Amino acid sequence: MKNTQILLASRPVGLPNRENWQIETVDQAPPGEGEFLAEVLYISLDPAMRGWVNEGKSYVPPVGIGEVMRAGGVARVIESKHPEFEPGDHVVSMTGVQKYWLSTGQNVQKVDPDMAPLPTYLGALGMPGMTAYFGILEVAALKEGDIVLVSGAAGAVGALVGQIAKIKGCRVIGIAGGEEKCRYLTDELGFDGAIDYKAESLYPAVKSHCPKGIDVYFDNVGGETLDVALAHLRLHARIAICGAISQYNSTEPVQGPKNYLSLLVNRARMQGFIVFDFADRYPVAARDMAKWIAEGKLKHREHIVEGLETFPETLLMLFDGRNQGKLIIKV
Amino acid sequence: MKNTQILLASRPVGLPNRENWQIETVDQAPPGEGEFLAEVLYISLDPAMRGWVNEGKSYVPPVGIGEVMRAGGVARVIESKHPEFEPGDHVVSMTGVQKYWLSTGQNVQKVDPDMAPLPTYLGALGMPGMTAYFGILEVAALKEGDIVLVSGAAGAVGALVGQIAKIKGCRVIGIAGGEEKCRYLTDELGFDGAIDYKAESLYPAVKSHCPKGIDVYFDNVGGETLDVALAHLRLHARIAICGAISQYNSTEPVQGPKNYLSLLVNRARMQGFIVFDFADRYPVAARDMAKWIAEGKLKHREHIVEGLETFPETLLMLFDGRNQGKLIIKV
Repeated sequence: MKNTQILLASRPVGLPNRENWQIETVDQAPPGEGEFLAEVLYISLDPAMRGWVNEGKSYVPPVGIGEVMRAGGVARVIESKHPEFEPGDHVVSMTGVQKYWLSTGQNVQKVDPDMAPLPTYLGALGMPGMTAYFGILEVAALKEGDIVLVSGAAGAVGALVGQIAKIKGCRVIGIAGGEEKCRYLTDELGFDGAIDYKAESLYPAVKSHCPKGIDVYFDNVGGETLDVALAHLRLHARIAICGAISQYNSTEPVQGPKNYLSLLVNRARMQGFIVFDFADRYPVAARDMAKWIAEGKLKHREHIVEGLETFPETLLMLFDGRNQGKLIIKV
Repeated sequence: MKNTQILLASRPVGLPNRENWQIETVDQAPPGEGEFLAEVLYISLDPAMRGWVNEGKSYVPPVGIGEVMRAGGVARVIESKHPEFEPGDHVVSMTGVQKYWLSTGQNVQKVDPDMAPLPTYLGALGMPGMTAYFGILEVAALKEGDIVLVSGAAGAVGALVGQIAKIKGCRVIGIAGGEEKCRYLTDELGFDGAIDYKAESLYPAVKSHCPKGIDVYFDNVGGETLDVALAHLRLHARIAICGAISQYNSTEPVQGPKNYLSLLVNRARMQGFIVFDFADRYPVAARDMAKWIAEGKLKHREHIVEGLETFPETLLMLFDGRNQGKLIIKV
């Protein structure tokens, strides 16, 4: 039995390219005692991956050269010597970018394919969903009536953040790239406004959509967008730092927010977070999210690309914004 | 009766200079009904003054051209038509940089010259004391055992911040300019370590003093120091943004903290504050501070310069760090 794996061949400088990855076909060992073997069905592609392949200390160790690329995935158990898993079980975990995955059962959640389509467990009911839920409700300490600005608003996390804020009675403005994405935010997701950063100048656009300023800024992009948001903070505003995709592939030093003293003037705070810290409360969030989905209050879409081997090119869609919704590879 | 006043003549570009100020001698009107007239005895000089003379929206309106420069001061009532104040009363308020001050009694606190020397009411028992108290205890949410880094540590606020953190059972490292100030921190104030930013390279110095990283950074200076602090955050660290004196006189754009993504990696927060927001709890803080002073746990020193007319030059001491302790003008 042969496994196909995508390995990290070298550390990217700037945008990852073909040479940074290696496709390997290797013999797949059967599961040992206490292990199971699963077939990976869907793989999640996330902006955070860009950070995982950098050298150096972060919130998780970097993926090593020659190692299987780290990724979340949905898999189906095909052979098991683990007491809690049996063939046919569907599970979500960090499966890596590969066709087969051997697991000890640690940090594995079973999922029910009859409750939701499998890709949803990598989107609204998966890491992006948990990130949106805890990021906006806990880290940004959302309150009813808040004026909320979200960047990367048509992305997997941003789209959910904005909708959760709408559910909670807030005014929500999203920033996204392109007319189609902006229409999606206002016409389909119910955002109060959308700013097309590719067509509009950000500062006047935020000023015109949020003349009273913003109470919450949920940041997925960093760079100039963060500075514009800082320039529009209201008293006691909260910024949740979820990511900084504008900076991930830059070969220049990270652009620091030169308007950070707005935090002082407005007695505001800027707080970073990692979704893993809320792991013990994922079930609570998943219950809320599933309920909102069932009620039609929370929409989600997945952008599914077929073929494990497309990984190097598919990943780049995140960075030029070609994906429309949560980006997933169907193995 | 003549009053002497320091007026703002023009808005400084970079460091304020003589031409930005105008010394005026004007007739002093007697107090009207509901007013009192007081002789200003001591005037507080604070880094925040640099912000008050900038054009544009901030947490207080800018001082207008031709207006008396805003300042905190201690004054003695000499004539009163206000039912609650009588000649001989000592008061603290925003008196402005002038010899006599007419007041309606709003935002005026009486102080007792027998309880503490009058300049103390502009330092440890005044705005710097309140800033240190609420900044480190509330904004930075100090916990016993925290590793605390303070910049501007020999300044009016920083010296108190470090000592409060020591009282609360923390390990405290201060950053200050010059050997004398550093010795003062460790030998007289009981800091666990001091870094002389004029003689040492900051990054390795912080690394060596705080090999486990820092839980709390109390920032008075901004710029490179903030970036070095960000690079050493521990998990769930808190940064209190009190000021950014390194940036106040810069004619370049403010230097944004390029290491701000350390907030994400370390699930940390950076929060700005203005001491006025805690005004309703000043009495609680003043009681604690006075007790610690009486017990010998909290030391403070004032750097007193004589003569109202010295204001333009004396103010500059804050920006080149020549002051040793809370900078005050004796009128």
